[in-house]
Amino acid sequence: MTVLVQKFGGTSLADPACIMNCAGRVAAAQRQGASVVAVVSAMGHTTDNLIALARAITQEPRQREMDMLLATGEQMSTALMTMSLHTLGVDAISFAGMHLGIVTDPVHTKAKIQSIDVGRLQRELQSGRVVVAAGFQGVTVDGQITTLGRGGSDTTAVALAAAIGQARGEKVICEIFTDVDGVYTADPRRVPTARKLDRISYEEMLELASLGAGVMHNRAVMCGSNYGVPIHVRHSSRPDPGTLIVEESPDMERISVVGCALTPDLGRISLRRIPNRAGIQAEIFHYISAANVLVDDIMQTEHGEFVDISFTVEMNDLADIKIAVQRFLDALGQGDMSVEVGLAKVSAVGVGMRTHTGVATTMFNALGEAGISIANITTSEIKISCLVTKEHGERALKVVHDRFELHRAPEERSLPGVSDPDLSAGVR
Amino acid sequence: MTVLVQKFGGTSLADPACIMNCAGRVAAAQRQGASVVAVVSAMGHTTDNLIALARAITQEPRQREMDMLLATGEQMSTALMTMSLHTLGVDAISFAGMHLGIVTDPVHTKAKIQSIDVGRLQRELQSGRVVVAAGFQGVTVDGQITTLGRGGSDTTAVALAAAIGQARGEKVICEIFTDVDGVYTADPRRVPTARKLDRISYEEMLELASLGAGVMHNRAVMCGSNYGVPIHVRHSSRPDPGTLIVEESPDMERISVVGCALTPDLGRISLRRIPNRAGIQAEIFHYISAANVLVDDIMQTEHGEFVDISFTVEMNDLADIKIAVQRFLDALGQGDMSVEVGLAKVSAVGVGMRTHTGVATTMFNALGEAGISIANITTSEIKISCLVTKEHGERALKVVHDRFELHRAPEERSLPGVSDPDLSAGVR
Repeated sequence: MTVLVQKFGGTSLADPACIMNCAGRVAAAQRQGASVVAVVSAMGHTTDNLIALARAITQEPRQREMDMLLATGEQMSTALMTMSLHTLGVDAISFAGMHLGIVTDPVHTKAKIQSIDVGRLQRELQSGRVVVAAGFQGVTVDGQITTLGRGGSDTTAVALAAAIGQARGEKVICEIFTDVDGVYTADPRRVPTARKLDRISYEEMLELASLGAGVMHNRAVMCGSNYGVPIHVRHSSRPDPGTLIVEESPDMERISVVGCALTPDLGRISLRRIPNRAGIQAEIFHYISAANVLVDDIMQTEHGEFVDISFTVEMNDLADIKIAVQRFLDALGQGDMSVEVGLAKVSAVGVGMRTHTGVATTMFNALGEAGISIANITTSEIKISCLVTKEHGERALKVVHDRFELHRAPEERSLPGVSDPDLSAGVR
Repeated sequence: MTVLVQKFGGTSLADPACIMNCAGRVAAAQRQGASVVAVVSAMGHTTDNLIALARAITQEPRQREMDMLLATGEQMSTALMTMSLHTLGVDAISFAGMHLGIVTDPVHTKAKIQSIDVGRLQRELQSGRVVVAAGFQGVTVDGQITTLGRGGSDTTAVALAAAIGQARGEKVICEIFTDVDGVYTADPRRVPTARKLDRISYEEMLELASLGAGVMHNRAVMCGSNYGVPIHVRHSSRPDPGTLIVEESPDMERISVVGCALTPDLGRISLRRIPNRAGIQAEIFHYISAANVLVDDIMQTEHGEFVDISFTVEMNDLADIKIAVQRFLDALGQGDMSVEVGLAKVSAVGVGMRTHTGVATTMFNALGEAGISIANITTSEIKISCLVTKEHGERALKVVHDRFELHRAPEERSLPGVSDPDLSAGVR
């Protein structure tokens, strides 16, 4: 008997009719012989509504109480999904966080899973029941309710698949049902010719998720990668297969670029005349992390006794980060800050970059021929990112998507330039 | 240090502003030196909305899943109330059913409390914290979430007061905050001259609650009576004392009638030519209880080999009960059924009836002088009820309320007729 974990997100559970539809997916999987664990998020805007209620009382609710509040959303969904399954003649039982055996650390609102005891869950599966599990939540060792942070239901689903797989000594697939039908070569709302991917590696998915592809939470992909859980992202109301996120295989390397993404609105903070001494970077980022903001890419150049450091940030965080950096400069007593806005970042991702040469050059050429200047370049093992002006962002994404022929099936691509090792000298 | 249990109902917690107001009551009690356990219901219409969600999926949800669903309502309230207390500078912590130590039987949606372990709750109180407890819910010995049925939050509050009282060897008062300011001599919406009672005995309150006074759930009053918990019913947004529900004391007996009530819309089923044999009543009520309806008063008269049996029922239940009774008659193969509608019942209640004579006569005289015919009379130790036509119901209530001078303070009443033992011959 195969075990299958199916996760249904909030938009797929927006109302009773949607919930019935998702129950139909569970029933179908069971009819095909699977033992199903259905992991559910809170319905539609429930979590946002709960947060709004708390904010109407206080701008700074204590985290433990936020967890008590937010955990109710998924618990509601478990009951309603279970009732829906009953109406379809499927034997099912709902499990809230306290029943799941998911023990987390006590860091409320962003707890990390420490251990999972799937004994109780397995007993229900063995008795032929579907277990409907509340996503997003766990309990501490002393029974406090915790939540895993936004996107935590994805993590619950993948972690349960990992734990059941370990207990049974076999791979358990985790299906993530959502309102898109898979992972695309680019966001289809921005690039109409974007193509759905059949497969993608964890690593590529991680780069794309952090670039704002938004299909799945990064932490869940990381968990899948750590425990080798195959993750199948698919549409909750369409029968077609979606995209399988799996371990990298040799054939994946034949494709140089698997997808590209746009971060549409960035600002850049540049610090100049900072003394070039050991530990100075840590000092800056001490101030920044105290302000609880994330920076995107970091660049540094040296000029003898000084360094220039610049980093890009989401526009939402720009105001906070300016204050934090100014505090650092005040404490340091020297250096200047300048701020640019109106930037965007276009990135190409693929594990094939490791073996294919000329990928960066192809991308630079494409942007250059389209008349788009590159303000900065950052790279990782499997990613190349170019900073451009915001007004060119959408077009830059299309240009790069076109040049790598991502609208075509991989076997139909000609990939000009990528096969020419001479052009890639200096970058990759 | 005194412990005080304060219970806030759904209408008192309708929105964040209302919740803040209730938090203010808790903070005030703490400032006056009490250790407070605040028991909260679900906000406003939350429970009704959850039930509507379930009904949109199935007309027959399984009870276990209803409990998973409904228990979220009170859990939400605990978090929001606790946040409100924090903003007032009060240290507080929320407890869901699983933290409260309330163990129930496994009868989902109408579970009965089996035991309460207040150890954890007492530790929090001792550390100076307010405990905000979810009303209406408990867990079974194996950790299933149960609910106590409608009005269950009152029961939670009284039961916690009883358990803490036992653990501490002292009486713990339970304050029930609601949207009325106490228990009245009659429903003030029907009788504008009705007077708020300072005190009432458990027994009187039980009779009035079952007559539809609606201020408190009967089961909670029963629990208060069993464990001697003083219950103080008061308005959530007015500072005045409300009504104290306590054990009967000798001075209460000086008052013959403490209050009166109207059941405004009843039907009556009469069975005739039923064989007068042992066990025939049990046979009838076997069919009625299988239909899950409650009958109000039951009357029986004998005629040699036959009995006539009639009973009143709430109009809502009339259709169901007619079917049930017809099934009985079909099985019996004899007897007739007749149905009357358009009836109402007016009742007078008071522990003083046990010692005062003439109460019934006074009531009959009052109705007779007002030209209101009495269709039937039922009595208990502390209650007299008269069935009248529905059109006379409201007026009958006012007439009885007036005659017993319930609009006056007890010491200012003249109570004509009640002191004359001759007039009461035959009834009391």
